[in-house]
Amino acid sequence: MTFPSWLSQLCRGLSRPIRRTTQPIWGSLYRSLVQSSQRRNPQNTFLVLRDFHGLVQVVIPQDESAASVRKILCEAPVESVVQVSGTVISRPAGQENPKMPTGEIEIKVKTAELLNACKKLPFEIKDFMKKTEALRLQYRYLDLRSFQMQYNLRLRSQMVMKMREYLCNLHGFVDIETPTLFKRTPGGAKEFLVPSREPGKFYSLPQSPQQFKQLLMVGGLDRYFQVARCYRDEGSRPDRQPEFTQIDIEMSFVDQTGIQSLIEGLLQYSWPNDKDPVVVPFPTMTFTEALATYGTDKPDTRFGMKIIDISDVFRNTEIGFLQDALSKPLGTVKAICIPEGAKYLKRKDIESIRKFAADHFNQEILPVFLNANRNWNSPVASFIMESQRLELIRLMDTQEEDVVLLTAGEHNKACSLLGKLRLECADLLETRGMVLRDPTLFSFLWVVDFPLFLPKEENPRELESAHHPFTAPHPSDIHLLYTEPKKARSQHYDLVLNGNEIGGGSIRIHNAELQRYILATLLKEDVKMLSHLLQALDYGAPPHGGIALGLDRLICLVTGSPSIRDVIAFPKSFRGHDLMSNAPDSIPSEELKPYHIRVSWPTDSKAERAH
Amino acid sequence: MTFPSWLSQLCRGLSRPIRRTTQPIWGSLYRSLVQSSQRRNPQNTFLVLRDFHGLVQVVIPQDESAASVRKILCEAPVESVVQVSGTVISRPAGQENPKMPTGEIEIKVKTAELLNACKKLPFEIKDFMKKTEALRLQYRYLDLRSFQMQYNLRLRSQMVMKMREYLCNLHGFVDIETPTLFKRTPGGAKEFLVPSREPGKFYSLPQSPQQFKQLLMVGGLDRYFQVARCYRDEGSRPDRQPEFTQIDIEMSFVDQTGIQSLIEGLLQYSWPNDKDPVVVPFPTMTFTEALATYGTDKPDTRFGMKIIDISDVFRNTEIGFLQDALSKPLGTVKAICIPEGAKYLKRKDIESIRKFAADHFNQEILPVFLNANRNWNSPVASFIMESQRLELIRLMDTQEEDVVLLTAGEHNKACSLLGKLRLECADLLETRGMVLRDPTLFSFLWVVDFPLFLPKEENPRELESAHHPFTAPHPSDIHLLYTEPKKARSQHYDLVLNGNEIGGGSIRIHNAELQRYILATLLKEDVKMLSHLLQALDYGAPPHGGIALGLDRLICLVTGSPSIRDVIAFPKSFRGHDLMSNAPDSIPSEELKPYHIRVSWPTDSKAERAH
Repeated sequence: MTFPSWLSQLCRGLSRPIRRTTQPIWGSLYRSLVQSSQRRNPQNTFLVLRDFHGLVQVVIPQDESAASVRKILCEAPVESVVQVSGTVISRPAGQENPKMPTGEIEIKVKTAELLNACKKLPFEIKDFMKKTEALRLQYRYLDLRSFQMQYNLRLRSQMVMKMREYLCNLHGFVDIETPTLFKRTPGGAKEFLVPSREPGKFYSLPQSPQQFKQLLMVGGLDRYFQVARCYRDEGSRPDRQPEFTQIDIEMSFVDQTGIQSLIEGLLQYSWPNDKDPVVVPFPTMTFTEALATYGTDKPDTRFGMKIIDISDVFRNTEIGFLQDALSKPLGTVKAICIPEGAKYLKRKDIESIRKFAADHFNQEILPVFLNANRNWNSPVASFIMESQRLELIRLMDTQEEDVVLLTAGEHNKACSLLGKLRLECADLLETRGMVLRDPTLFSFLWVVDFPLFLPKEENPRELESAHHPFTAPHPSDIHLLYTEPKKARSQHYDLVLNGNEIGGGSIRIHNAELQRYILATLLKEDVKMLSHLLQALDYGAPPHGGIALGLDRLICLVTGSPSIRDVIAFPKSFRGHDLMSNAPDSIPSEELKPYHIRVSWPTDSKAERAH
Repeated sequence: MTFPSWLSQLCRGLSRPIRRTTQPIWGSLYRSLVQSSQRRNPQNTFLVLRDFHGLVQVVIPQDESAASVRKILCEAPVESVVQVSGTVISRPAGQENPKMPTGEIEIKVKTAELLNACKKLPFEIKDFMKKTEALRLQYRYLDLRSFQMQYNLRLRSQMVMKMREYLCNLHGFVDIETPTLFKRTPGGAKEFLVPSREPGKFYSLPQSPQQFKQLLMVGGLDRYFQVARCYRDEGSRPDRQPEFTQIDIEMSFVDQTGIQSLIEGLLQYSWPNDKDPVVVPFPTMTFTEALATYGTDKPDTRFGMKIIDISDVFRNTEIGFLQDALSKPLGTVKAICIPEGAKYLKRKDIESIRKFAADHFNQEILPVFLNANRNWNSPVASFIMESQRLELIRLMDTQEEDVVLLTAGEHNKACSLLGKLRLECADLLETRGMVLRDPTLFSFLWVVDFPLFLPKEENPRELESAHHPFTAPHPSDIHLLYTEPKKARSQHYDLVLNGNEIGGGSIRIHNAELQRYILATLLKEDVKMLSHLLQALDYGAPPHGGIALGLDRLICLVTGSPSIRDVIAFPKSFRGHDLMSNAPDSIPSEELKPYHIRVSWPTDSKAERAH
């Protein structure tokens, strides 16, 4: 494990003393005395102290003069805070611990003081992973003492610092704080509200500094960044936090490739030394290609199992659902190949895959062994002719023991389904012991050329922005805005890491007329709420663009943490609660008065409160 | 003015190109063409472009080939964004401008493109100080283009970056983000509320990360810092912002001098190069001394005019109000000396000083000329005996033309009054032309040994914390907590710069029992709201302490800005409004429903809304 080496490297920076402060060896008692003394000379007593540098072994002399020191240290409960002074000595020959950075020395203690005793702990600090997350969050201050949380939070701090150096010192970006008490944005249904002292007037906590960063460009602060706190009220969504942090960047006079190379350099520069270096430039894929090949706009490119269009093989098929699909205008036949699926997947896995496809996509899935003679439960597969089989083996590049999952239907739907199954099967193969994704690999990918608009879910004849209404159209597609806006691509780009979207941005519209046309005519938005932004574009706004990286997710991936809650010091539970302090909390009604609000109690609990 | 040199220095950092991005000379038209061309050869046309580097002069050739370029540039309105390419040439001999960093060259333009035209501006970008602040805030994106705002925000970014380097890279501090959606704190009457989706439950926006930083110490993150956004709802208070930023620091195993030297080093390291270097260590003064000498706990030590106790001179006085005062147990006679007051102050100034003292402090003020024979309107002064006069001249060290302001009364009250008058008179003397405070001087001061408790204003027999309930008592005064808590001093310290409190902190209580005793027994607080913190102290909390620096105020003083709104990109007006976007805003009642709140309209406007 690279953690101790990383920590000891860090410590070199920490160990410079601050003037006036003498820094004795402090720490908390880490292991019980019994456990250590059993391993060694029974005349001495040993204990291990922990501080932010790591661990150090302390030895208590057995002579009478050390009696009071021994009493203090032996009676101090585990995790108490003690101060000791003594002499650093080499450990006796043969008793060194090469696995410990301080394994060659120990401290012969001379004086000791108990600074604070620890009560009985609700759980042991080591092995924190075995505790329930609720318990860890309730006693977060104890959970933070674990090696993993210390590593995660210190790494996060280091990475952000390197990012700042890169942006601020190397590239002249200006760190500017933007307000979080702002005005609601059009369609800002997920914005927390903050009542003001004016009746009926509320601030909103913005989901991102989008408007401010664009206004800064108009204001001539042409390279802006901020490690920005953002807010999104999504109710109960697992692995989301009501407040989160993004590395927020905007610059003037830049194009898409300019932002991309800036971010590639940023990640390369800030990447932890204990990981493989980041290789740049990152590969780029269009949205259309990502959907066709991986069935998603955030492909996990650490492994293959790509979606392959096999429509041509089945032009003359007798298999009913393939025939049906291909007879329709956008009908296709698609497949993915599960490597060694015959070996790793069980019959019931295939059954649940088929059920999933039927339940969630209303699609049929046909599992096929192209190289073997097995065919679970799938009589239709025997309708595949020998010529078709050979053509499929060639197209799909299948090996003995591979299983092909085949589906048919409308292009997007078939791809989305196979994209989901690709990930499900990869997880399944890995739980069964196959190594499909190298755990040390970080696979970055730019996804570009997104559509500018999508049909509204509730009314598909109307348009909504695929990302946000300030996204500039693709330069080749501007004419389409006035003829077929649905077909216009945007200058939006997403950054994907190991199948997770870790950032997104775009070149923005800097022309007020174009912005008004898109907002008012195409999106039918109330432009009054954005009048300040539209007006700003009228006063000589430079061309500009930017990006935001999701810091919590990025650090989560870098540290290999199971949840973003493991890279945040004090996260909320998935219901948005702080389990330690019990926030959110009730407020006496007189404290609501200055804000001119009252609680509307739901009807069924009204009676309850009347008691 | 040092601004251009600072900017050009900054530009060296900015000018490194980003890969893939070619950086042409961009900028916005700054001056009208006419103005520039009048000064030079009438055959050519000149204009000045501005970008983040500064200004550059562009010259348009007069030959026919440049006709289209000339048309583009001549027709572009002021503040439009243009892209030009051309050749950098030396200016003709004698036409260099030594005041301009680019004054030796100009650009002979070859191609030009209008990237965005600017509409008629609501005000000219230069001379922004002459606009009303409301207009500047409404068009903040234009105001940000001014040299002063660019300087302020870029300097702020640079200083914060240097602070981060000092804390993170040199001293091993860990940058940790703490939540802003938290639980209300006891007595948190100034906390903004954020309704949650649970009926009657609210988050609070904390005034500081105080609890979290202490919990981090318990969690073994023993050197924490954060550039923390904080919130305080104080309604309409001028020069306060509902959200503000503090450099928030906490460390374990530290004492008061340790924090002080850390902060001295921090400010020294991050101080702008264009100012005189910071001299450390900063002087220290006790709270008692500050009050006695300057009449305030944040003395402006850039100038003298100290308060002097002259009680002994008047033990046998015949002046009635002095006699009265001295006959009381805590009665004193105090004075300050106004240098050259006879020359700079007018009779009506003295009158308004006396009126101020009577109206706000119910105190009498006696103006005395000790060295001259003048005595405005103050017959009592003639009761001062010659021996008293000579003793006063000695004590107060007065010169010809000085005026002494003398008052009598209870110690604290007399000092507070004279402290106010000292500042008022200093302002007055400076408006009349005296140079009392060196504008390049930054005078830091630590104020220490504050009282731990103060009598509650509404009930002086009860105690409240002078700062906050987590402040540790002075080590010498712990016994007083159990006998005379009012007399106990604390381990709180304030950092004062030029008479402004720019930071404050303390060594905290790390003993749960002591913390419980102070909260429950002395302060009569409901300890349930802080049970998580008390519990954390029980689990081996290390001794710890910290500080918070008010970043907005600090940058305001460093840049010499008249208001903190000049060092914040998008400040709120003093009523808490964003004049640009018009926040806070009305929210449709259906958007309030998920949060289970309703607006309580004040009665007098109910009728109005019924229309």
